[in-house]
Amino acid sequence: MISSTEKISIIRLQGDTCEKIEDEVTVEKPFTIYVNGEEFITLLCSGNGEEHLMVGFLASEGLIKKVEDIKSVNIEHETGRGYIEVSEGVLMKKKAHGKRTLTSGCGKGTIFYDVLDSLTAKPLESAFKIDSDKILELSREFNDASVEFKATGGVHACALCDESEMLLFHEDIGRHNALDKVIGNALKNKIEIKGKWLLTSGRISSEILIKAAKQGIPMIVSRSAPTKLAVELAEQMNVTIVGFARGRRMNIYTVADRISCPVSE
Amino acid sequence: MISSTEKISIIRLQGDTCEKIEDEVTVEKPFTIYVNGEEFITLLCSGNGEEHLMVGFLASEGLIKKVEDIKSVNIEHETGRGYIEVSEGVLMKKKAHGKRTLTSGCGKGTIFYDVLDSLTAKPLESAFKIDSDKILELSREFNDASVEFKATGGVHACALCDESEMLLFHEDIGRHNALDKVIGNALKNKIEIKGKWLLTSGRISSEILIKAAKQGIPMIVSRSAPTKLAVELAEQMNVTIVGFARGRRMNIYTVADRISCPVSE
Repeated sequence: MISSTEKISIIRLQGDTCEKIEDEVTVEKPFTIYVNGEEFITLLCSGNGEEHLMVGFLASEGLIKKVEDIKSVNIEHETGRGYIEVSEGVLMKKKAHGKRTLTSGCGKGTIFYDVLDSLTAKPLESAFKIDSDKILELSREFNDASVEFKATGGVHACALCDESEMLLFHEDIGRHNALDKVIGNALKNKIEIKGKWLLTSGRISSEILIKAAKQGIPMIVSRSAPTKLAVELAEQMNVTIVGFARGRRMNIYTVADRISCPVSE
Repeated sequence: MISSTEKISIIRLQGDTCEKIEDEVTVEKPFTIYVNGEEFITLLCSGNGEEHLMVGFLASEGLIKKVEDIKSVNIEHETGRGYIEVSEGVLMKKKAHGKRTLTSGCGKGTIFYDVLDSLTAKPLESAFKIDSDKILELSREFNDASVEFKATGGVHACALCDESEMLLFHEDIGRHNALDKVIGNALKNKIEIKGKWLLTSGRISSEILIKAAKQGIPMIVSRSAPTKLAVELAEQMNVTIVGFARGRRMNIYTVADRISCPVSE
């Protein structure tokens, strides 16, 4: 695995002393994705796990649904480029996507509402249940695994878990990238995402929620806060949101009946 | 000012107790910008300061340069829409922009490199100097002002400062939005941004750096971390980056000679 932190020389001021020291900073690199030879997007990312990122990004955008949609993948680390060849049917979708992007201003306008409509119309069905102790146990494991965050304070982490353990773990400077890497890794390695749950270090915004719900994820847990819109949408989509999962505490915002925890009146 | 936090009912688990409580969460709202009647983009934001956000976003995108470029502004709070009428010359630029967006995948591809080239070609000239004590003093003031962050843990803050005080302060769920609100407010109220410095609660990524450098800002201070790419670009653009400004400490990453601080050998 390529290291995504680097040592640089900085000046540290502490109280009345000021000294030159070596400090670790997180790497940020432009990564340009080409779909069947055509430039698609440039993402700013941590410069590792690019294959997972590329596959996951295209899956999140709805272009790729399964590993069979991919004909080949080629990552050029030196130039920061990723080339993916997809099947003809997928390419047709890409063209439709490009068209929508134009009308809706960067894929965030009309598409946002389109996606919302389709997701809220069909609330997630899932028999998923978990014990609150297990959530806190895996949250601790997740924090321990976030080595880059500990070294630099500059990255986000995301993990896919089942009822008993963490299955996949990725870090990136972007919380969306970290989630896309998890999705891409799962897709490439045929790990079923549907019905599994997510741990994230970042805030739970509507966009993170929507990205997860599209993959059939019944629960998102964060050590940080959700937004009001994410909470409202999660209620409609039947997704459990847990925030501020730290130490021995957590806040359950939606669909609490999936989590068994001690009840006081 | 419209409150951008709301109280909701949640379940809090703490140790062995589990109880229903009221908790504050930060608001997140889609806000769609229409330029001369045409849909431009939908941003997800905190649902306040939309006028500043709209003007600042278009300034950051390079469409608006001065208040005279704006013919009228109209915010519809109920529908989450903002209508801005710009002069004919600005509209021509918007059309060119739309075209580039199409070729470069969501404005993040070719444009990223174009912007970089023009910024690194002309390093910022600025005689800006400041004392390290003043940075830490205004950082404390900045933290005290971040009331929404304290209430919800879910927002970012950004402030424009001069050598002696904080001039503008905005919060938003997005660190880019918070900066755009500052830029929009300054532009609308004819406050010169060039030569002033920024405080931000968020990480300093290349995109935040570029957005600030485009406005002629010589220094960005954060309580969080910068990325390696931001540090490299700041060096080339002659912008001072200060990270982890907390309590009585800070890390100076680039162009340290603007900051007078106690020197040990």
